[in-house]
Amino acid sequence: MIEQVEIIAVGTELLLGVTENTNASWLARQLSLLGLSSRYQVVIGDNHARLQAQLEQSLTRSDCVILTGGLGPTADDITMQVAAEVAGLELEFHEESWQRIVAYFAETGRVPSDNNHSQVYLPNNQRILPNANGTAPGVIMEFLFQGRKSYLILLPGPPLENRPMFLNHVQPFLEEHSEWRMEHRYLRLIGIGESDAEARILDLIEAQEETTIAPYAHAGEMLFRLTRRYARSEDPEQALAYYEEAQANLDRVEQSIRERLGRFIYHVGESTLPELVCGQMLAQGVSFAFVESLTAGMAAAEAARYAGISAVFRGGLVSYQDAIKTQLLDVDPQVLQENGSVSEAVAYQMAEQGRQLFGSDYAISTTGIAGPTTPQSGQSVGLTYIAVAGPQGTRVARFKFSGNRQKIREVATLNAYNELRRSLIQDGVLALEA
Amino acid sequence: MIEQVEIIAVGTELLLGVTENTNASWLARQLSLLGLSSRYQVVIGDNHARLQAQLEQSLTRSDCVILTGGLGPTADDITMQVAAEVAGLELEFHEESWQRIVAYFAETGRVPSDNNHSQVYLPNNQRILPNANGTAPGVIMEFLFQGRKSYLILLPGPPLENRPMFLNHVQPFLEEHSEWRMEHRYLRLIGIGESDAEARILDLIEAQEETTIAPYAHAGEMLFRLTRRYARSEDPEQALAYYEEAQANLDRVEQSIRERLGRFIYHVGESTLPELVCGQMLAQGVSFAFVESLTAGMAAAEAARYAGISAVFRGGLVSYQDAIKTQLLDVDPQVLQENGSVSEAVAYQMAEQGRQLFGSDYAISTTGIAGPTTPQSGQSVGLTYIAVAGPQGTRVARFKFSGNRQKIREVATLNAYNELRRSLIQDGVLALEA
Repeated sequence: MIEQVEIIAVGTELLLGVTENTNASWLARQLSLLGLSSRYQVVIGDNHARLQAQLEQSLTRSDCVILTGGLGPTADDITMQVAAEVAGLELEFHEESWQRIVAYFAETGRVPSDNNHSQVYLPNNQRILPNANGTAPGVIMEFLFQGRKSYLILLPGPPLENRPMFLNHVQPFLEEHSEWRMEHRYLRLIGIGESDAEARILDLIEAQEETTIAPYAHAGEMLFRLTRRYARSEDPEQALAYYEEAQANLDRVEQSIRERLGRFIYHVGESTLPELVCGQMLAQGVSFAFVESLTAGMAAAEAARYAGISAVFRGGLVSYQDAIKTQLLDVDPQVLQENGSVSEAVAYQMAEQGRQLFGSDYAISTTGIAGPTTPQSGQSVGLTYIAVAGPQGTRVARFKFSGNRQKIREVATLNAYNELRRSLIQDGVLALEA
Repeated sequence: MIEQVEIIAVGTELLLGVTENTNASWLARQLSLLGLSSRYQVVIGDNHARLQAQLEQSLTRSDCVILTGGLGPTADDITMQVAAEVAGLELEFHEESWQRIVAYFAETGRVPSDNNHSQVYLPNNQRILPNANGTAPGVIMEFLFQGRKSYLILLPGPPLENRPMFLNHVQPFLEEHSEWRMEHRYLRLIGIGESDAEARILDLIEAQEETTIAPYAHAGEMLFRLTRRYARSEDPEQALAYYEEAQANLDRVEQSIRERLGRFIYHVGESTLPELVCGQMLAQGVSFAFVESLTAGMAAAEAARYAGISAVFRGGLVSYQDAIKTQLLDVDPQVLQENGSVSEAVAYQMAEQGRQLFGSDYAISTTGIAGPTTPQSGQSVGLTYIAVAGPQGTRVARFKFSGNRQKIREVATLNAYNELRRSLIQDGVLALEA
């Protein structure tokens, strides 16, 4: 059984800060989702002596070491060789992996170079991990180190190669070698700040025993990840009983959180707010458009992330200058002058006129002060109005966001989707999930 | 003098993958910019014994260890205490830092809690680093470790706190304790791929001696960082001579690269392409607008990052559905039907009509196939047309971008700015910098 896993990222470019070490964070998250403990992450260059010493140290304190990087075809890629030496394994030419590389190049009408040969000298009788998106195969080495069963798992450096390889091959391997199973549940909240949300359930977080509650905050959203660890069983009936007990326990914890924060929870699952709303608009065949001043295209661009959304997403207007608001949108110049462009009245007209202009079921407008702070803007930086015009009328919501210019615009974009969601619920288009 | 610097990020949340370890990459880049070598990065939890053992190991192999994190007010924040123990220094209440915390809280009408006291127990007679954006002060500890002059530099974990602290206090300290000075120059290229650009100057990269050439690629752009390391001198005349020699050397290397790649170089410096173009539009008082299909607001949103751009940025239309192109833009329905929405003719009309609609000096249109690949789209995913309509006429450029849906849209956004830049040069609005 594997308990302690350590992560080593190999590459001089990481030491120079040229490449962000996103592999370590991503792998750490996967390990934590699997309930495996990780006490160390190390970054080290492509240097034989230092890498060897590091591996020996790591294997004295961890059952399993995951290495990323240094599996390329050039002379400075030494991870496989050093790992095999430390594991006491011989490397041999692996014909099947070579054929994969030949086929991989053939797809784009190329042939591998002699250098690529070096990538298929692999340890005999070990698990070889095929690379669906590149040339370097990975490997799981199993061996005795200081008399103890140990594992070195080697993955290529590029995230597009190592992530599928981890999910397809390493994750099942680790699950098989773990005493535990993990069940996760994601509660997504909007409209409440991180510290406020945490404070309201602090007693639940602190009292956590069987189910852990981990809070995360990101650009205007809050996420609570509930995690329940439970014992594996080879007996199917016992396994089902353990699973159901875990689910019941998660249900209870979710319910306790709902009692305090239910009205802020917009989703239980892994979808983001724009994904969720765009998915619903598509499913219901309800069309929409954005009229953006503050967010200047960010809300529209977010919708266009979803392939197929053009069936219901009509488009948007970025009415950045006041003249555009009056000329293209027919916002009343007097209203604009009396209230200023950042006002409830102008947000209202932008949404209503936008709905007319685009002939959409819904139109959402944003107007606000993104900053930076100037003597004129002063206290008002972050002041934002978001209006939603729909078949049953138009609503305006007022916000005061904080952060720098870009942060304020990002949070406003998220809230534009939330206001649309709220209108859809009010209008009976969407069921209130919470 | 300091030569080897090691980076340790402290925090259980990093081991769980909850927080991305962006500090290590950022610090690594700063060290490399300063010409300092770094052979290890470590992530470790808030655990006394393990942190102590790690510090002792790190100090045997590096002159200087930079630690981030674990300086908060709670009981699990132990970095200061463990570091002081390893350095053999006593911690004492530091009144000046306490007063800073009191003042920091007072700014927002609050008072510090008792917990915050623990953050100002600092080593006596050491460099204390004030925190402009939070409560935890940093410190530079100077001491003998195994008879050798050694340094532990402690910084708070949040990037908004540690980055200014590094730049304001640690960087000057490291410069002062380094034998070298570094001079950097950034050559920015667009319109050429990374491997192609590298291949054309491979001999220069490989022959690099005094000046190093480091290639970077990011979302459709290429960057070469030229770096010249030169000796420090206390003698002002000598220092100036060294500096001028470094500049002359950089000039020669830049010139050699220009001979091969000059037409792809759009800027020498640190501005991004949208920054550069928006800055020029503002400076020249030339107005612009976007009409976006493929990029659906991304180009407009990019312009709005720049405070004050509303003086010349009129706005944009996201014409996502064909009906919007014909109804709001007056694109000829027959042209649309005959050529399809992703065509030179439609891109042309979108830009021309957009220029009329927004009354701007320039209008830039994007239309393309973002994917994902379907039997219908097939080979065409990535096909993109970008048109620029200006006072002297309208140009259309055709592209075939690669990558996933989001990547294609990002690269198209960047190229929309580049096409605008090219038109400005053609029209004599912008001087050809290269």
